[in-house]
Amino acid sequence: MARMKTSKDIVRIVKKTIDLNNSVIITKINLEQFDKILKLVRNYGIIYKCKMAGLIKITKKNLEQKYSGGIIGILTGGTSDIPIAEEAKTIAIEMGCEVISEYDVGVAGVHRLFPALKKFIKKDVDVILVVAGMEGALPSVVSGLVDIPIISVPTSIGYGIGDKGIAALMTMLQSCSPGTAVVNIDNGIGAGAIAAMISNRAAQFRKKQSL
Amino acid sequence: MARMKTSKDIVRIVKKTIDLNNSVIITKINLEQFDKILKLVRNYGIIYKCKMAGLIKITKKNLEQKYSGGIIGILTGGTSDIPIAEEAKTIAIEMGCEVISEYDVGVAGVHRLFPALKKFIKKDVDVILVVAGMEGALPSVVSGLVDIPIISVPTSIGYGIGDKGIAALMTMLQSCSPGTAVVNIDNGIGAGAIAAMISNRAAQFRKKQSL
Amino acid sequence: MARMKTSKDIVRIVKKTIDLNNSVIITKINLEQFDKILKLVRNYGIIYKCKMAGLIKITKKNLEQKYSGGIIGILTGGTSDIPIAEEAKTIAIEMGCEVISEYDVGVAGVHRLFPALKKFIKKDVDVILVVAGMEGALPSVVSGLVDIPIISVPTSIGYGIGDKGIAALMTMLQSCSPGTAVVNIDNGIGAGAIAAMISNRAAQFRKKQSL
Amino acid sequence: MARMKTSKDIVRIVKKTIDLNNSVIITKINLEQFDKILKLVRNYGIIYKCKMAGLIKITKKNLEQKYSGGIIGILTGGTSDIPIAEEAKTIAIEMGCEVISEYDVGVAGVHRLFPALKKFIKKDVDVILVVAGMEGALPSVVSGLVDIPIISVPTSIGYGIGDKGIAALMTMLQSCSPGTAVVNIDNGIGAGAIAAMISNRAAQFRKKQSL
Amino acid sequence: MARMKTSKDIVRIVKKTIDLNNSVIITKINLEQFDKILKLVRNYGIIYKCKMAGLIKITKKNLEQKYSGGIIGILTGGTSDIPIAEEAKTIAIEMGCEVISEYDVGVAGVHRLFPALKKFIKKDVDVILVVAGMEGALPSVVSGLVDIPIISVPTSIGYGIGDKGIAALMTMLQSCSPGTAVVNIDNGIGAGAIAAMISNRAAQFRKKQSL
Amino acid sequence: MARMKTSKDIVRIVKKTIDLNNSVIITKINLEQFDKILKLVRNYGIIYKCKMAGLIKITKKNLEQKYSGGIIGILTGGTSDIPIAEEAKTIAIEMGCEVISEYDVGVAGVHRLFPALKKFIKKDVDVILVVAGMEGALPSVVSGLVDIPIISVPTSIGYGIGDKGIAALMTMLQSCSPGTAVVNIDNGIGAGAIAAMISNRAAQFRKKQSL
Amino acid sequence: MARMKTSKDIVRIVKKTIDLNNSVIITKINLEQFDKILKLVRNYGIIYKCKMAGLIKITKKNLEQKYSGGIIGILTGGTSDIPIAEEAKTIAIEMGCEVISEYDVGVAGVHRLFPALKKFIKKDVDVILVVAGMEGALPSVVSGLVDIPIISVPTSIGYGIGDKGIAALMTMLQSCSPGTAVVNIDNGIGAGAIAAMISNRAAQFRKKQSL
Amino acid sequence: MARMKTSKDIVRIVKKTIDLNNSVIITKINLEQFDKILKLVRNYGIIYKCKMAGLIKITKKNLEQKYSGGIIGILTGGTSDIPIAEEAKTIAIEMGCEVISEYDVGVAGVHRLFPALKKFIKKDVDVILVVAGMEGALPSVVSGLVDIPIISVPTSIGYGIGDKGIAALMTMLQSCSPGTAVVNIDNGIGAGAIAAMISNRAAQFRKKQSL
Repeated sequence: MARMKTSKDIVRIVKKTIDLNNSVIITKINLEQFDKILKLVRNYGIIYKCKMAGLIKITKKNLEQKYSGGIIGILTGGTSDIPIAEEAKTIAIEMGCEVISEYDVGVAGVHRLFPALKKFIKKDVDVILVVAGMEGALPSVVSGLVDIPIISVPTSIGYGIGDKGIAALMTMLQSCSPGTAVVNIDNGIGAGAIAAMISNRAAQFRKKQSL
Repeated sequence: MARMKTSKDIVRIVKKTIDLNNSVIITKINLEQFDKILKLVRNYGIIYKCKMAGLIKITKKNLEQKYSGGIIGILTGGTSDIPIAEEAKTIAIEMGCEVISEYDVGVAGVHRLFPALKKFIKKDVDVILVVAGMEGALPSVVSGLVDIPIISVPTSIGYGIGDKGIAALMTMLQSCSPGTAVVNIDNGIGAGAIAAMISNRAAQFRKKQSL
Repeated sequence: MARMKTSKDIVRIVKKTIDLNNSVIITKINLEQFDKILKLVRNYGIIYKCKMAGLIKITKKNLEQKYSGGIIGILTGGTSDIPIAEEAKTIAIEMGCEVISEYDVGVAGVHRLFPALKKFIKKDVDVILVVAGMEGALPSVVSGLVDIPIISVPTSIGYGIGDKGIAALMTMLQSCSPGTAVVNIDNGIGAGAIAAMISNRAAQFRKKQSL
Repeated sequence: MARMKTSKDIVRIVKKTIDLNNSVIITKINLEQFDKILKLVRNYGIIYKCKMAGLIKITKKNLEQKYSGGIIGILTGGTSDIPIAEEAKTIAIEMGCEVISEYDVGVAGVHRLFPALKKFIKKDVDVILVVAGMEGALPSVVSGLVDIPIISVPTSIGYGIGDKGIAALMTMLQSCSPGTAVVNIDNGIGAGAIAAMISNRAAQFRKKQSL
Repeated sequence: MARMKTSKDIVRIVKKTIDLNNSVIITKINLEQFDKILKLVRNYGIIYKCKMAGLIKITKKNLEQKYSGGIIGILTGGTSDIPIAEEAKTIAIEMGCEVISEYDVGVAGVHRLFPALKKFIKKDVDVILVVAGMEGALPSVVSGLVDIPIISVPTSIGYGIGDKGIAALMTMLQSCSPGTAVVNIDNGIGAGAIAAMISNRAAQFRKKQSL
Repeated sequence: MARMKTSKDIVRIVKKTIDLNNSVIITKINLEQFDKILKLVRNYGIIYKCKMAGLIKITKKNLEQKYSGGIIGILTGGTSDIPIAEEAKTIAIEMGCEVISEYDVGVAGVHRLFPALKKFIKKDVDVILVVAGMEGALPSVVSGLVDIPIISVPTSIGYGIGDKGIAALMTMLQSCSPGTAVVNIDNGIGAGAIAAMISNRAAQFRKKQSL
Repeated sequence: MARMKTSKDIVRIVKKTIDLNNSVIITKINLEQFDKILKLVRNYGIIYKCKMAGLIKITKKNLEQKYSGGIIGILTGGTSDIPIAEEAKTIAIEMGCEVISEYDVGVAGVHRLFPALKKFIKKDVDVILVVAGMEGALPSVVSGLVDIPIISVPTSIGYGIGDKGIAALMTMLQSCSPGTAVVNIDNGIGAGAIAAMISNRAAQFRKKQSL
Repeated sequence: MARMKTSKDIVRIVKKTIDLNNSVIITKINLEQFDKILKLVRNYGIIYKCKMAGLIKITKKNLEQKYSGGIIGILTGGTSDIPIAEEAKTIAIEMGCEVISEYDVGVAGVHRLFPALKKFIKKDVDVILVVAGMEGALPSVVSGLVDIPIISVPTSIGYGIGDKGIAALMTMLQSCSPGTAVVNIDNGIGAGAIAAMISNRAAQFRKKQSL
């Protein structure tokens, strides 16, 4: 929301939104604006923040978080992919899901991937988000190893030919393992939203069942 | 499976596969080969076929179809998108799902869309596949109207700049309605697979619940 | 006109142009320069301005606006498309047309579109300009609903693959509804000009007829 | 309509369409199929044909052509652009317009252009279609010379970098003369349709006026 | 030479170069650096400068300009193309040629072109440089009118699809008039060099002949 | 001229053209058609032919070849580039030039290049055509070695990324040696034409001088 | 060598080459031509053939194979990549190397990869060729697991966006594991050649050492 | 490592890394940060620096450099390619190799290349890195002259079409001389790493042999 707006503009919109919606998420804030905005909004409610992702979430103090029962696993290939993963995570939590995240488990060090997947399987996650830039090979490897639907999120990390996420996007769309779909480059919010919808659908019946 | 193979080659592979797997799906058969192959395989089992999609599915006679309980809705923008939709449908049915399909409801005649969506909502589908070529605008419109996760399938229908499905793919990735993810151009099989995985996840709990 | 020129440069050119042409339109002014320029030109004539579009129009005080009788409808998909729509509007008004604009009626919330189109039909507009970024799906939907020629204007709103208006442009060129043509990305001025020419052509005979 | 269909398929569809619509246009027929189809349909009604464009139009014998009063001028840059121009012409005539066409007047021999434009101005055409491949420079030159709205149609004539109409399309979208809009490559039908809509709008008032 | 170098760096290189070569040309200087550099080098020799092109040429005072006898005509489509034209001109003059330039004679106002070409023919120029951005249509028109070899220079003027000179480059390479070749986008220096080589070749024999 | 035309069509056009122009050049004939056409035209005049280039030139028997005095050198990188070189050669000879050609002297075997260039320098050629596909590096090397204007012709020889001549074209436009310009991919005819114009210009004065 | 040449042409060239070089490799033969050519050359020497790769190698009977001592490992992602792997293998063997190949060990079934790598490490290969199409993720995974230089070969296997090997090429160039370099799409021959050069370099010292 | 990080951030990471690894290499430092960082780290160990490449290497004082025995030759086409070459060099030295570098020997002045190659052959280098931007033709020429494996490194030096290293990358991948492989644009580090691995492999046996 914060691209090319002044800190003051953002805070004014935040105020308006929180009065209407009880909660608001701001993403992609410039590092320069981050602390300034944080200071201005700190009394508006309960703050969840990730400076790396330029992300601040504010929930009205008297708002009890609804919990949907959906469970989502999020992986990133590298550390540079974390801001986009955090965007997805925040949206998914906002939509009531529980999120388990394991970062920096990319194919260049494939041994770190196995314990992360083991954890996801044990938790019986409904869907996995795989966030990766550069060669974007992680979703193919993951979907060859587990039988869970995967939403791939290419990030704009990369260089030379195929930079700005183009190589990662193409790789993810070419994936020869079935069971994956893709969102646009850096679209953490969209990925979080569809993952939450998928997960909440399953949770809806799980909950009834456990009653 | 059938691209650039002789009818005889295909039938030989079909035979081998059916002996191993009890069921086999052949897609993208040339029109010239279709009847020839159909004749050769007719005694191998129960046949499901779609000449338009160049698709033949053979199930061993004594094989009882497992039914998972998942429910999927499939839409196409035009009639040229049907072959890819049929691929997705066949895979989803193979994976145990029930599939409701409504074809040729694209944005150029948006009034045909509403009764189709009404039917999907009534049937309480778990996920919607939207198959579209040309401008690929249908998923955006659908996801603005319903609150169900959408998998978009761009098809290679189109011409001039953005042909071979490129315009449709980009449109679907740019979609400003949340709740959609995309597979590669003409990837009906991949779309069917992930939709079935999403749908079966929900069905797994629905079934237990109804016991 | 204002890209990479100093405020002083712009004002000097404005002065020269207004002396020759009795009226001048400046577009794409940086936010930083806007107020500065506005202050410098405020005595040159009657001011029409849109800060969002970085647009200032100055008409010599003693100049009576010619009115051609043409009627144009302008739609935008989102709020970010408004600056380009305002450029088109200003040009069309400058060329003597009446302009009815309805903003933020894109496909993600297609219900907002219908009352806008109803208004256009009631006013019997000669041509519709549809200004949209992201997936650029709006012109297809509109041209499937009305029987009026449409000029589509892709905007550079978007991200990831197909960004800078490329996805929107391709979508608009692929449109499967007949009756649309397209101008280049962000070309509000060109769109306003051709719409006014089309509209004024019809108005020319309408006027004679009503005499 | 005829891409990759057998002659028999086409004729069957033609029969069905003519019974419903009283008239049918077939375009892009292969040269091999042309005479075969022509022979099969010759008794269906009044035939208009252009072998170069692979185009056959059939009108039921007892159908009186409606005449809208719209007047359209069509130019082509070279002779290879004529098939697309003929498509546009046929659609425009079908929609009731009068069409004046001047072919092979491209910028490599700019002197041939002037008498063509003179004729258009004398006839007071409502809109000009400019059909051109290769460098696609003709619309820019024309729109610098006349004050009539122009619809540009890039054709897939060309070679090397920018082939398949890409260079022509980009040139037309970059045109620095105002008053032009563009349709997709080889889209003669779409161009004919929007030109007819623009032209018929003006004609509607012209007719009333002349009553 | 001046891209991303400090004014001081540039002046130091200039000093070194002029001592070795007796003359130096600096191009693409930022507007901010221009006056600063100009002031620092003013005593190094005879100055030729074009602020618009960010170009300064310095010739040692005691250096007599060699004159080769070559004659070159330079055209630009618009005023924004002048900096690149001035680069070409300066190189050509440096290589001994006489240069006649006519700026802003593009296809949007084709009537301004004819007197310019008349002047070139009267002067019997050996070669014509055509510098144009946007749709880059000027070389096609010129080469259809005169029988003189043409070097086309696409400039990075443009917007939307085909921007950064891509549309102009493609148009120039697609030109259907024979007798043109192209240099890379904004390569005024390369264009000036090859034009001078072509022109000087002819001049070499012209001079001998006139002895 | 012969792309997608029947042999009979071609011969009919050839007949017409030769009656009007006294000479005709046919290029890009399919291998299948070559002998057939050759047989049909052998009595029309004096035949020059190159089967590899699919090229036949026919000159009316009583036509004396005009000789302009221009001298052109042509190089190719490999043997696959020869057809395009032969096109250029035929056009240049048709326009009165003498052509010296040295084929298969590309950078992969750079030692073969030096004697070829020595021959060109000895003959004092006015201009060099360099025809090359794949990496297209030859013009850069040549223009670093001689002081003669160079026209580069990329050919569609290549594979993988940058195929169809795109890599060669880009390389030639990026050349860091001054003194080269480029024509579009496979445009042997255009290259021959501009080379002949450049060469004939010099020859015109050379001839006068030698009188 | 065999693209678009008749079987007879190929055999004639083969004959000539084998007389000069004692051995010849023909690649990319059409399936239709394969048996025909094989029959024609069977008496020319010792035959090595791979129908899938369209590859025939002929070594003069009395020619003793030189053995360099180099050891190369070759992996493919899928079965469709085998033809390109076989090209590389044949060239490497021709250059004296020992080749160990493990096919169809791609990331969709990553468990098959480990025993293949174990074999390579046991054999102490000097270099690994990784041949893969689709998403081309295999080199990244391999280079994260072993400390051996890797040459990646993208193949033209794939579909939709990034097809013809473009996605695989970009992925391989973006690889975030160090120690990999890439050849052009489907360039099995080039890959085999550089792998053999690298391997033979090490072998040269290994051999001396073991003397 | 230093892209978009503050000098303080970088120094903190450097400190941490050096404590763990005994040595650290920082690359792509902004010119503004260079001196600042240099000052802050000067006491951390032995400094190797290249301001042009924005590169600082720090080795703990008590760390003795391991020497592997590998020998690498590095060439650059121009002076602008030196920063990338220095990156490769630093990595290769870090990995124990001896590096001989010859800069600015590109094809525009091919005579400078021969003594450089002579030196490499005399030193018996194991592998050659060729670093080049613009047309990227140098690797083709080098691999045609020597029988040593070549790793090509395209740099982002260039302009107009094919800029940002795209033309150089394509040229290098299209190279028709066998024995070359390519890394991504500006990937000096990756190039240094694979060259060192190749070289060290040979050195490993060379060393044993010389014992």
